[in-house]
Amino acid sequence: MKANVQPTKRTRIKRIPKRGVFDRDAIYSILDEGFICHVGFAVDGEPFVMPTGYARIGDRLVIHGSAASRMMRSLADGIEVCVTVTLLDGLVLARSAFHHSMNYRSVVLFGTAEMVTGEDEKMEALSALTEQIVPGRWDDVRWPTPLELKATTVLSLPIEEASAKVRTGDPIDDEEDYEMNVWAGVLPLSMVPGAPVNDTRLKNGISVPKHVSEYSRSPSR
Amino acid sequence: MKANVQPTKRTRIKRIPKRGVFDRDAIYSILDEGFICHVGFAVDGEPFVMPTGYARIGDRLVIHGSAASRMMRSLADGIEVCVTVTLLDGLVLARSAFHHSMNYRSVVLFGTAEMVTGEDEKMEALSALTEQIVPGRWDDVRWPTPLELKATTVLSLPIEEASAKVRTGDPIDDEEDYEMNVWAGVLPLSMVPGAPVNDTRLKNGISVPKHVSEYSRSPSR
Repeated sequence: MKANVQPTKRTRIKRIPKRGVFDRDAIYSILDEGFICHVGFAVDGEPFVMPTGYARIGDRLVIHGSAASRMMRSLADGIEVCVTVTLLDGLVLARSAFHHSMNYRSVVLFGTAEMVTGEDEKMEALSALTEQIVPGRWDDVRWPTPLELKATTVLSLPIEEASAKVRTGDPIDDEEDYEMNVWAGVLPLSMVPGAPVNDTRLKNGISVPKHVSEYSRSPSR
Repeated sequence: MKANVQPTKRTRIKRIPKRGVFDRDAIYSILDEGFICHVGFAVDGEPFVMPTGYARIGDRLVIHGSAASRMMRSLADGIEVCVTVTLLDGLVLARSAFHHSMNYRSVVLFGTAEMVTGEDEKMEALSALTEQIVPGRWDDVRWPTPLELKATTVLSLPIEEASAKVRTGDPIDDEEDYEMNVWAGVLPLSMVPGAPVNDTRLKNGISVPKHVSEYSRSPSR
């Protein structure tokens, strides 16, 4: 069994402590189901939040980007970063406006990124990033050349100062509101694939592979 | 026609300028289709990124939260904030790992939040927040009491220093890779509602309203 992460001043859930989760398995299952994070950092006190893909490799989270990108250069300098992953599971529709909410699972991770420099480690990270988004894709495609590797910055962040927040289930209304003639409940939401669209320059005779036609974001549910 | 927002040092798209959009209508259509943002701010140089609901009211964006929440109290102090809204439209699957990408529409908004204090303005904001998430819901539910209004902090941010970033269409591979026997194209993704789940304490004889049974996040497509 994995050791839990230790709550810190930043990760302790202050507002609704019952929603806070420090169990590593719970944190990892959220990170593994998602593939987009929002990366926050401050430059001269000014906050920036950028969406980007990520992958989990063991106890680390990796992101990548162009070596020329402002975000990657700022983070590679070793400044503090906050990475947030949010999975939306449903709208919680109460009888009162006040008790409306959402069912979600989110992870917030604080730390300092390290640049991944070795060619093998970079290749491993890029493989993980591809597989996090489309499991089964990496073996089908052309792998990065040394030049492409050079043009890509890979950053790695330890999953240490992290917490998850989870809300599930029914709305919780004030007792007297349960008598109202208002529909209440949960409207589930999920990220669902549509029909694959062939590249307009796709070679004849190539069919859609299973990792695309059977794509799903909910491995565990 | 609305005036475009003016690019600033922070919002100018540096990496791939062709993806940058400063047209107010384009920015607003992205903000109107989404309802979850990631709010970034820094406290003593440490960045925080929190997911939360939002609404657009004219040229302002509003968020709300418990008056007791750390984030709302920090932001109400007038510190710099970065709000990012990301709509994911599809996975862009190229023949090379390097050219994999995503189709998305995102908005990044910088500014300083102001607390909304008047009861009428607060009520308008809470109505807009409910309607942004579930259009048609506000008229069916019990509205906030004065006490509930008091327990809720509403913050408002001018939509001035903002930019959108949009990627659409096919993967772009290196010319020599188009001969590879690899499927390439786009796998569309969208946020789709499941079947509504009645609250376990729902009164008998109340059916699911249209604003729930016909819920859709893609008004314009």
